[in-house]
Amino acid sequence: MCKLASRAYKEEDTIVQVGNVLIGGDEPVFIAGPCSIESAEQVGQIAQAVKGHAHILRGGAFKPRSSPYSFQGLAEEGLILLQRAGQEAGLPTVSEVVSPEDVELVAQYVDMLQIGARNMQNYALLKKVGRCGKPVLLKRGIAATIEEWLMSAEYIMSEGNPNVVLCERGIRTFEPLTRNTLDISAVPVVHHLSHLPVLVDPSHAAGKWDLVEPLALAAMAAGADGLMVEVHNHPDEALSDGPQSLLPKRYCQLVEKAREIRALAKRRKTNV
Amino acid sequence: MCKLASRAYKEEDTIVQVGNVLIGGDEPVFIAGPCSIESAEQVGQIAQAVKGHAHILRGGAFKPRSSPYSFQGLAEEGLILLQRAGQEAGLPTVSEVVSPEDVELVAQYVDMLQIGARNMQNYALLKKVGRCGKPVLLKRGIAATIEEWLMSAEYIMSEGNPNVVLCERGIRTFEPLTRNTLDISAVPVVHHLSHLPVLVDPSHAAGKWDLVEPLALAAMAAGADGLMVEVHNHPDEALSDGPQSLLPKRYCQLVEKAREIRALAKRRKTNV
Amino acid sequence: MCKLASRAYKEEDTIVQVGNVLIGGDEPVFIAGPCSIESAEQVGQIAQAVKGHAHILRGGAFKPRSSPYSFQGLAEEGLILLQRAGQEAGLPTVSEVVSPEDVELVAQYVDMLQIGARNMQNYALLKKVGRCGKPVLLKRGIAATIEEWLMSAEYIMSEGNPNVVLCERGIRTFEPLTRNTLDISAVPVVHHLSHLPVLVDPSHAAGKWDLVEPLALAAMAAGADGLMVEVHNHPDEALSDGPQSLLPKRYCQLVEKAREIRALAKRRKTNV
Amino acid sequence: MCKLASRAYKEEDTIVQVGNVLIGGDEPVFIAGPCSIESAEQVGQIAQAVKGHAHILRGGAFKPRSSPYSFQGLAEEGLILLQRAGQEAGLPTVSEVVSPEDVELVAQYVDMLQIGARNMQNYALLKKVGRCGKPVLLKRGIAATIEEWLMSAEYIMSEGNPNVVLCERGIRTFEPLTRNTLDISAVPVVHHLSHLPVLVDPSHAAGKWDLVEPLALAAMAAGADGLMVEVHNHPDEALSDGPQSLLPKRYCQLVEKAREIRALAKRRKTNV
Repeated sequence: MCKLASRAYKEEDTIVQVGNVLIGGDEPVFIAGPCSIESAEQVGQIAQAVKGHAHILRGGAFKPRSSPYSFQGLAEEGLILLQRAGQEAGLPTVSEVVSPEDVELVAQYVDMLQIGARNMQNYALLKKVGRCGKPVLLKRGIAATIEEWLMSAEYIMSEGNPNVVLCERGIRTFEPLTRNTLDISAVPVVHHLSHLPVLVDPSHAAGKWDLVEPLALAAMAAGADGLMVEVHNHPDEALSDGPQSLLPKRYCQLVEKAREIRALAKRRKTNV
Repeated sequence: MCKLASRAYKEEDTIVQVGNVLIGGDEPVFIAGPCSIESAEQVGQIAQAVKGHAHILRGGAFKPRSSPYSFQGLAEEGLILLQRAGQEAGLPTVSEVVSPEDVELVAQYVDMLQIGARNMQNYALLKKVGRCGKPVLLKRGIAATIEEWLMSAEYIMSEGNPNVVLCERGIRTFEPLTRNTLDISAVPVVHHLSHLPVLVDPSHAAGKWDLVEPLALAAMAAGADGLMVEVHNHPDEALSDGPQSLLPKRYCQLVEKAREIRALAKRRKTNV
Repeated sequence: MCKLASRAYKEEDTIVQVGNVLIGGDEPVFIAGPCSIESAEQVGQIAQAVKGHAHILRGGAFKPRSSPYSFQGLAEEGLILLQRAGQEAGLPTVSEVVSPEDVELVAQYVDMLQIGARNMQNYALLKKVGRCGKPVLLKRGIAATIEEWLMSAEYIMSEGNPNVVLCERGIRTFEPLTRNTLDISAVPVVHHLSHLPVLVDPSHAAGKWDLVEPLALAAMAAGADGLMVEVHNHPDEALSDGPQSLLPKRYCQLVEKAREIRALAKRRKTNV
Repeated sequence: MCKLASRAYKEEDTIVQVGNVLIGGDEPVFIAGPCSIESAEQVGQIAQAVKGHAHILRGGAFKPRSSPYSFQGLAEEGLILLQRAGQEAGLPTVSEVVSPEDVELVAQYVDMLQIGARNMQNYALLKKVGRCGKPVLLKRGIAATIEEWLMSAEYIMSEGNPNVVLCERGIRTFEPLTRNTLDISAVPVVHHLSHLPVLVDPSHAAGKWDLVEPLALAAMAAGADGLMVEVHNHPDEALSDGPQSLLPKRYCQLVEKAREIRALAKRRKTNV
């Protein structure tokens, strides 16, 4: 089992700072933005639309796609656009890094590095982000056990980086009606085993925008430390993940409801 | 795909009446009780302890156990004890039936018949309860797709019984830290495809009592029409499922919090 | 864990006799026939076509179908046709029983009772066939662990019936290109844990006729005690499972190849 | 779906040359060696012991381990030892590469680059080996669909490297008695969809040495183009995967039996 990531090693909850945002504290944290950064206008408009409700702006510049013929992201150009949109909206940023060779490049532009589900056991990459100063958002692999996920956090932490935030995004099962099966139990199980914060990404779990809200609210009720949600100003024209993206207006309504549910869930803890 | 169970066939939500309790309406319904009925004292005490918070009393008299050498339930004697405890507490009752040959017997004593996960595709049993006048609680099989689950409801309905309530209780995945993986997405997916009410059983999904509350609250946030929770006055001495059973006091606290979360989730629907 | 079914309880291999056929001995046993019995002509022609290569004739009269609107089988009429076709071809017969109420009826007509995957944990049915004198073919549930499968055999054996033959038919996974995932490892694992014979049904695992042969040969190489294969004289017109049914001629070629592979695999055991 | 990897794009079977060994032709290819290269003596002894039966020597120098505290391999030193052992035994070599940064280094020492299951969707790595001249052994991810696996081959091929060999090594399911569930159906399914050769690794699928032989023979019967098996001269002292490693003597017996089964399976193809 894990050491540095375990609750046995460190009893109090870890709080990870990203820009001026604290993840893991009393307040839930909301990360929003497009799956892929497509243009200055696109990411800028989305950032402006969510800035009152989201705390951190997300956007993919290096996209891991199942097909080599799918849109692979704008690379460094995308990172520049994300950084600018974040600065104009007053939001810190997070973006995925897919190769050890790109860690320094991505770290120049963003406030938090994301490790995607496909790379959860890309140990060379984990070690590299472990030696980088930036906080890390570590998604669960599609067929990773919770123990393996925590061991991947351990890879990052054992290289000297304690600022790891976990993100549950659904696992692969036999059920075809959802893209993945959100393992909502992972939230309380991780909180029991580890001191690290755990977020939920309902967008990838659902695969359809109309399932995002119930899953997001469920995550808040289960005690998640925040949400990462895909938001797009024109989902029908998105270059990736359009069907599971929310419009900004709907997203902002979701955040308000999520806050209320989360406050109730937090109150629960102090009562019992 | 299903016909009678589909939202396309009947647009408005079905409300199923069990005794004087309505499942599927504005108010969430809470079903509680022991996994197995063990004695008059046991089921009576639990019924009295939960009666202010639960609407329906559950208890198993015919227990489907993986091993033939495990406690198999008190059979008819258990049903008599359950009926008496329900009457004294003013609660209608639900109990599992595992064989077509027992349907009439069980139906004499209880207000609702439960079909367990292992029997979700026991079509002879489904047809028999479809020809019985009692409402049916149909649990999802451990590896059943949502479509197969709805087709099993269709078996019951096509025999003339429209009073079917679905119950999600976790599916089997590779994750060993929970007994089953609660498929929380099934709640909104079923509500989209079908007019039937859907409950959640967090006890079997979790397998551990301390996971029951977060999963129960998540179910409420996702819009479930109610909860079925295992409650025992002496979990350490329970003849089955002790580790996942709540003490009555904790259960009652859970119900109060669940109601608040559910009210928020319901309010959401009218706002958007 | 299981008792009566375990290798620890009984070291030597169990040999189950069905008519004059021995399952579990040196020679592999081949069961063949249509998914559903459709007419006297259909089952009779198939029986005649396979009789030189198959040892036991299969055919479904009570069909467990996901939809109540699918063909449900000819019931007793089908059993009469199966019995007659078997007698004319000189083959003992096996057919599925799906309800405790039908056990005596089915047992009147066939030499072996089949418990299907959906009913592997239908304990009332298992107990009933355990009290019936006929040998039982017990299919693995689609998400049953090997241990649970052996415990279901234990249910039958603990009622006094030692003549249980196991049948692996594929489990449910995330892979969509096959109907189920044949768990070939189950063959040697069961042989290690239990003294009961284990067959393989490549037809249900594959879902497509052109995968049946490689899976059947793999089963022989892994040491399976026999094969159950769906054969139809007009697959395109079959009322169920046509796409995975072999034509009789192809089936007979398969059996010959399977015998050779099996002989090599058996020789292995004595050499090491 | 894939293009360059598809049977529709190229009808005839692809034959991949590794040193003087041809993978994908009439003769099955056997790859053997230790999980981890531990010392000159260890890998040298194993190479000498298997050289009459294996065609290619395997050994891990960069080991992807779930825990950062487990043995991580000897890195370049291990590659030097593997190369020497291969040269002395007259065997070409294969070893895993886990990071784009290491591709050139590993390619200096070995004849074939292995992409492990955890890195099947490490697209930066796939692209890098796609631009390297060496043939690639691409293992299936533990929860990858066959279509995703072929798309990963497509990543390599679309960068200009047509020399890809696929390797099935088991997928993750709910069954705890085996380390993974060998998806034997993947062999004929891949042969149907693609022109690329497909090997089977029974060692990782089984997790126990006594299951390796039946799974290996099953793979041959299903038409696999070869086997990759872990062999160790002292399994009890192995630094990784000892329990699933065969002793050299047993391995050589396995190869002889595998050849016979494979010859039968190949004969089948020409007959029908």
